[in-house]
Amino acid sequence: MTRIITINREFGSGGRELGKRLADALGIPCYDHEIIEMIAKENGFDERYVANVSETSIEAAYPLTIGHRFNVPLMPVMDQPIRVAVAQRKILENFAEKGDCVIVGRCADVILRSFDPLRIFVYASMDSKVARCQARAPEGENLSRKEMERRIHQVEKSRAQFREMYTDSRWGAKESYDLCLNTSHREIKDLIPALVSFTECWFGKEE
Amino acid sequence: MTRIITINREFGSGGRELGKRLADALGIPCYDHEIIEMIAKENGFDERYVANVSETSIEAAYPLTIGHRFNVPLMPVMDQPIRVAVAQRKILENFAEKGDCVIVGRCADVILRSFDPLRIFVYASMDSKVARCQARAPEGENLSRKEMERRIHQVEKSRAQFREMYTDSRWGAKESYDLCLNTSHREIKDLIPALVSFTECWFGKEE
Repeated sequence: MTRIITINREFGSGGRELGKRLADALGIPCYDHEIIEMIAKENGFDERYVANVSETSIEAAYPLTIGHRFNVPLMPVMDQPIRVAVAQRKILENFAEKGDCVIVGRCADVILRSFDPLRIFVYASMDSKVARCQARAPEGENLSRKEMERRIHQVEKSRAQFREMYTDSRWGAKESYDLCLNTSHREIKDLIPALVSFTECWFGKEE
Repeated sequence: MTRIITINREFGSGGRELGKRLADALGIPCYDHEIIEMIAKENGFDERYVANVSETSIEAAYPLTIGHRFNVPLMPVMDQPIRVAVAQRKILENFAEKGDCVIVGRCADVILRSFDPLRIFVYASMDSKVARCQARAPEGENLSRKEMERRIHQVEKSRAQFREMYTDSRWGAKESYDLCLNTSHREIKDLIPALVSFTECWFGKEE
């Protein structure tokens, strides 16, 4: 049985770090930026453009949803955001077919539903998210607490909107996931052994 | 460091079984019915009456909240529901002071906040909850699907209302807990090793 683990996360919750560390501990790949890089490389796009489209744009996913619901074939001449979204879906499916992996973000839990992934959601208190964002901010960036909170809200709102186009299950609602983990003021690395154990319990131990 | 693990759960999610099994695996006591029995025994109440008051009655908790917020001493002559709620708080605190334990329900996560408990919430899909309730229904009880759903909603609403009197943090909202676990169509016993590992990660391993 292929073990696909998807990580969705609040901005500043440490979800990306958690995905990388969990994948390392399990000895399987973690896909995150790699997805963007592949889409860009294989389709001749600029990476920053792909990054923008592939997780924060509503329009990008919209025609995919339509296509699925009404079974309308995609037009031969597609807009760039649609091409990005289609490429993303294909790349996610390719990754999943290759074998066990962790995938961070990008609605992988919904797109790869047929692979029956373990769906993890990572969240934290606003205090903790602001602290994490400030700790990893690039040198010279000195956002106020209020500005940082605004940015967190913006990113999370985009993620929620993007998800809505793929599915009725709400972003961040516990019902959409198998395991929700509160990382407030916790070291991510301290939680990894438990998540490894959780993965083994969920899928059954690898022989 | 005392390891207090509190379990809140949706009705039919298997949360009670999970609490018992986790406590067994950790070799620590699990308090659930025991709380009701002790309150009844020490205060001369009927057990069924205590069971009703101690988790489903709003009035029971109300004067406690008032007492805490405005520091009003409790009246020497108290109504029975208030006496039950006070007894419950004292018994929970006694349990926590005795040492490591799992406590199922009864707002223990809020009442024992100062012990910094690991707060677990257990939930499941309606399909799964109905199936669990039907499997454990007493012989002769043949509720329809609709009646079972109504009962589940009623119990969960009571739990949510009871909680509201102790705290602003919402019952079932992931932000109120450290770990939320979806047990839909899962065997509870299969998840226990992961929860043991999670407990060790959370509190640090016992020497």
